[in-house]
Amino acid sequence: MTVRVGVIGAGIMGADHVRHLAGVVSGASVSLVADLDAGRAAQAAEVAGARSTTDPKALIEDEEVDAVVIASHDSTHAELLLACLAARKPVLCEKPLAPSVEEGREVVEAEEGVAAELGCSLVSLGFMRRFDPAHMQLKRRIEARELGEVLAVHCVSRNIRSAPDATNVSAITNSAIHELDSMPWLLGTDVTEVAWVSGRKSSSMAPAGLQDPAFMLLRMADGTLVTLELFLNAEYGYSTRCEVVGERGTASFTEAPLLELNLERRWFTEYPADWRPRFADAYRIELQAWIDSLRTGKPSPLATARDGLRASEIGAALAASIDAGGVFVPVVHW
Amino acid sequence: MTVRVGVIGAGIMGADHVRHLAGVVSGASVSLVADLDAGRAAQAAEVAGARSTTDPKALIEDEEVDAVVIASHDSTHAELLLACLAARKPVLCEKPLAPSVEEGREVVEAEEGVAAELGCSLVSLGFMRRFDPAHMQLKRRIEARELGEVLAVHCVSRNIRSAPDATNVSAITNSAIHELDSMPWLLGTDVTEVAWVSGRKSSSMAPAGLQDPAFMLLRMADGTLVTLELFLNAEYGYSTRCEVVGERGTASFTEAPLLELNLERRWFTEYPADWRPRFADAYRIELQAWIDSLRTGKPSPLATARDGLRASEIGAALAASIDAGGVFVPVVHW
Amino acid sequence: MTVRVGVIGAGIMGADHVRHLAGVVSGASVSLVADLDAGRAAQAAEVAGARSTTDPKALIEDEEVDAVVIASHDSTHAELLLACLAARKPVLCEKPLAPSVEEGREVVEAEEGVAAELGCSLVSLGFMRRFDPAHMQLKRRIEARELGEVLAVHCVSRNIRSAPDATNVSAITNSAIHELDSMPWLLGTDVTEVAWVSGRKSSSMAPAGLQDPAFMLLRMADGTLVTLELFLNAEYGYSTRCEVVGERGTASFTEAPLLELNLERRWFTEYPADWRPRFADAYRIELQAWIDSLRTGKPSPLATARDGLRASEIGAALAASIDAGGVFVPVVHW
Amino acid sequence: MTVRVGVIGAGIMGADHVRHLAGVVSGASVSLVADLDAGRAAQAAEVAGARSTTDPKALIEDEEVDAVVIASHDSTHAELLLACLAARKPVLCEKPLAPSVEEGREVVEAEEGVAAELGCSLVSLGFMRRFDPAHMQLKRRIEARELGEVLAVHCVSRNIRSAPDATNVSAITNSAIHELDSMPWLLGTDVTEVAWVSGRKSSSMAPAGLQDPAFMLLRMADGTLVTLELFLNAEYGYSTRCEVVGERGTASFTEAPLLELNLERRWFTEYPADWRPRFADAYRIELQAWIDSLRTGKPSPLATARDGLRASEIGAALAASIDAGGVFVPVVHW
Repeated sequence: MTVRVGVIGAGIMGADHVRHLAGVVSGASVSLVADLDAGRAAQAAEVAGARSTTDPKALIEDEEVDAVVIASHDSTHAELLLACLAARKPVLCEKPLAPSVEEGREVVEAEEGVAAELGCSLVSLGFMRRFDPAHMQLKRRIEARELGEVLAVHCVSRNIRSAPDATNVSAITNSAIHELDSMPWLLGTDVTEVAWVSGRKSSSMAPAGLQDPAFMLLRMADGTLVTLELFLNAEYGYSTRCEVVGERGTASFTEAPLLELNLERRWFTEYPADWRPRFADAYRIELQAWIDSLRTGKPSPLATARDGLRASEIGAALAASIDAGGVFVPVVHW
Repeated sequence: MTVRVGVIGAGIMGADHVRHLAGVVSGASVSLVADLDAGRAAQAAEVAGARSTTDPKALIEDEEVDAVVIASHDSTHAELLLACLAARKPVLCEKPLAPSVEEGREVVEAEEGVAAELGCSLVSLGFMRRFDPAHMQLKRRIEARELGEVLAVHCVSRNIRSAPDATNVSAITNSAIHELDSMPWLLGTDVTEVAWVSGRKSSSMAPAGLQDPAFMLLRMADGTLVTLELFLNAEYGYSTRCEVVGERGTASFTEAPLLELNLERRWFTEYPADWRPRFADAYRIELQAWIDSLRTGKPSPLATARDGLRASEIGAALAASIDAGGVFVPVVHW
Repeated sequence: MTVRVGVIGAGIMGADHVRHLAGVVSGASVSLVADLDAGRAAQAAEVAGARSTTDPKALIEDEEVDAVVIASHDSTHAELLLACLAARKPVLCEKPLAPSVEEGREVVEAEEGVAAELGCSLVSLGFMRRFDPAHMQLKRRIEARELGEVLAVHCVSRNIRSAPDATNVSAITNSAIHELDSMPWLLGTDVTEVAWVSGRKSSSMAPAGLQDPAFMLLRMADGTLVTLELFLNAEYGYSTRCEVVGERGTASFTEAPLLELNLERRWFTEYPADWRPRFADAYRIELQAWIDSLRTGKPSPLATARDGLRASEIGAALAASIDAGGVFVPVVHW
Repeated sequence: MTVRVGVIGAGIMGADHVRHLAGVVSGASVSLVADLDAGRAAQAAEVAGARSTTDPKALIEDEEVDAVVIASHDSTHAELLLACLAARKPVLCEKPLAPSVEEGREVVEAEEGVAAELGCSLVSLGFMRRFDPAHMQLKRRIEARELGEVLAVHCVSRNIRSAPDATNVSAITNSAIHELDSMPWLLGTDVTEVAWVSGRKSSSMAPAGLQDPAFMLLRMADGTLVTLELFLNAEYGYSTRCEVVGERGTASFTEAPLLELNLERRWFTEYPADWRPRFADAYRIELQAWIDSLRTGKPSPLATARDGLRASEIGAALAASIDAGGVFVPVVHW
């Protein structure tokens, strides 16, 4: 059985999903691509030999669409998820679940209602880091207690340049959101309070409204302290670091470059320009895991709608800390 | 269109191919698995929902087999390849093409005859390093002259332990054969002469008949010197290194570990126990490229039968250098 | 001219200074060693062909002592420094200047009085990191704006095991004190406020009264945020890290190991058991710089008594933050 | 007691020795500097507060010269060493002992005659790598059998640019000579035969008469194979590598950089422009060890005249291999 997927959104992310589903995922095909820009939809569809449309609701209803991928603008996620639930079709939605906690709660409520009725969940959320081989290996080692008990985690998330309209809050909901999901997943414990600490702002690149870099602290239920430097205009390269500090030792991501070079007095490895090379495997493996769950009828191993809501709730607490001048603010989970 | 593949050989390599083709390659399925050991065949087939047999010739003839993978013992390759050619079925054969240069020439002769008749080649050879992302990136950089002209290459190939019956010649035809194919491919030039230099033999692990480590020199048509240390009982880990030395700088493989750890006074990364984790991506990408060529009717981008023969001919010259006491011996290409 | 040095304290640190001064510093000799333990004093003195005593005051007064090194217990520093000032002898005192801010201020007051009278300062403080080649190179690159403006610094200071009676405050005054001196020196700006953030405590090794690891934040006058993880029972090794994050890139210490090894499936470098191998060069270079200043009559390039006081004042603010539950506390400089 | 040293040769190497002896070596001073260029001699002498001369023989005879350092042109070494022996003064001569094996034998003969008469040797040879901390640590680990028995060693020696008049033979006697001394020292065994293997020549920088890079093989008495790539116009940086391959694992030099940097999409460390930063510690430690032996009357731990001769004899065998077309040539030790 081949799962025929309809992909909503033919931007960078959506077009990548089309290519993956049509070219390197076993058991999947792409039947329909939707984008408000008809030309962009057609172009992405052509790669996969699929049809295209400008109407996402029509895509969801289409008879040749067994399952839906939502990769359109964040502001459309909630409405499209609700449409997929109404159509009783499985859906993989890119993060975030919704821009606001309120919308997120509405989706979770609807989703859990349908799941109760059907006996299975229809919504998977695209926190692809859970399928990144480095993240998976790190989680296995933590669970095997190779480092002893985990005491602290230091995360660094750097991009070359932010969106020109990035703000302190959008930096959280769009970028830090990955750590807000991955830290509880990795550590197997909840975030109880958070703080957002200001510092010196880059003058060269960062938009006026963005404190960049920003520094955040997450305190987990067992006391573990997670630190996160988020630097969206770091210029030098795209880099995702995470060092887990245990009682007996530590484990960190390498950047896993393939080659090291000697040129011009330097011994170096190279950084990618953005997140896609770093997480290409994660996206492929995530899509394969999703398709496999649909083919076998087993529960999806991807993040759930509720996982997405929880990350948004931590983000809301960080936003509250900004307003409160950087003090710790408790996280309220629904 | 889904390509239905029959896999001959259900050992480590064959079983891996079955899993890849059935689970992570787009557009492929496994219809039949053959192994002399019926239980092993059935076990591998089950993973893929395929049938099994103990008769490889029957597999090749089977109507539900569109294409064949040969992963059985080296000694069977030539005969099975000839059978695939007779059946006019595309085939991906694991390296080596054949244990002897003579058998290899017989296959190439048959293959080129059929190719002339059909207007396309049916035989692909499994030199998977050509699809390893590190090898591919290295080749791109060489071709882009990033290092200036290439002057020398230093290869190191280390395993934890050799087969108990390994010999100096089997070490070449089974292990060094990878570099014998990849160096001309990487450098875009032929090997003209080779030398096999003896040294001090490991007393702890190596079989009596094996000079381990062995040291080889390949001189390319443009003068470039390739050095290769082959150490099959290196104990500490599986490692494939290659440093390309150019006029302006060098490029080398990293071992591309995902995590770095601090434990017990050591800052370390880990080695795999064998080649499979190192080349898992290469096998997957190679199989996808092969399936894609079958689906689109475009020529296979894999190594050809003639490539396999050329590697064997270089190996034969190395064997002659052993007998001649380590002097340079010219490579004779058919 | 050879400077004849008297060394007070023949423990680990003092004995090392004796060996350095007698064996690898140009223009110095050791004439007298004092320790409350007569045997220990004699043993250290023997290495240098020096006399020994149990009376530190007698050492300071001794005619064959041109200059004094104080490496005795922290609690003796202030009194011995005052005695050196009274005797008008130049002195290099190990950090800290004094255990309390009050004592430190008393020493600075006396020191500045004598300096005004003599036209030169007599007291140098042993913040040896200022002479560590890695620290010096890092400072040069910051000053050359190679990274653009500095925005943040991440420090990690890990030991294998703490003193059995270590407390949160002694961890600051004995260990973190190094960063409290080196950060203003490195960045060329003052610390204005600090916070001490609690986390999960190691259960395996840390003394009952010690939150280990501890996490500290220093905010500099220009807004730069410095983070410091201090982990005294990190078990795996001694490690001093510092990453300076600038607008265009970052610079970090390597651990500068001499060898990398492959053994037991690991590619590794080794950590030292304590700080001495890491900072052996720093101590040697610091002592040479001090001796050179005494021989040439130029001002000592070492940290001053006031530098030592400033570090203690920052430490006092961190201790106040502990008591205040982790909020930011302003640093009060005298 | 302070050893008053006379330094012959005030070029790069000699001036560095003056600075070291006058500024960072305990128990030494520089009393006299000789150079054919009076201005250069005076300039180097000034740093140390020493006198200067243009007459090296006068320096050797000078009453205020207790010991001599020879850092003048290679062609003067033999004659000056014989003059020191005649004057019965201890001498540290930079490598090589002499440009030719014949001259080297003359010096050794004289030296051993004087040593027999005095009961101690007067000549030390400046193979400073024996005092490089990385080399010393590597030797200790080999002797402790941490890697099991040593089976092979891979050396790489790269410079940014060669002397404009470099030849295949001068590349051996000036550069490879370091490995020709350090390998027998490191491995505790002799070189029995050597081969010099040609390859592809760099077109961009290398002088016409220089095969660059050159590749050499040394076979030790116990069979261990040492490989050496010598690349004098490697452009990208100065680098000395050595990987010792044992039965259980390997050990290699790191380049021991102090900082790692992130800039311009690269994660990098830097190479020095020449050998001096890499071996600054080695020169300092070597000089201290030599001065210590003179002060204590213990035998010098530096390389001996005979060590220097042995290295030259290996070099002569390599030169013979060049003439013989690259075959293995036995090493003849006197």
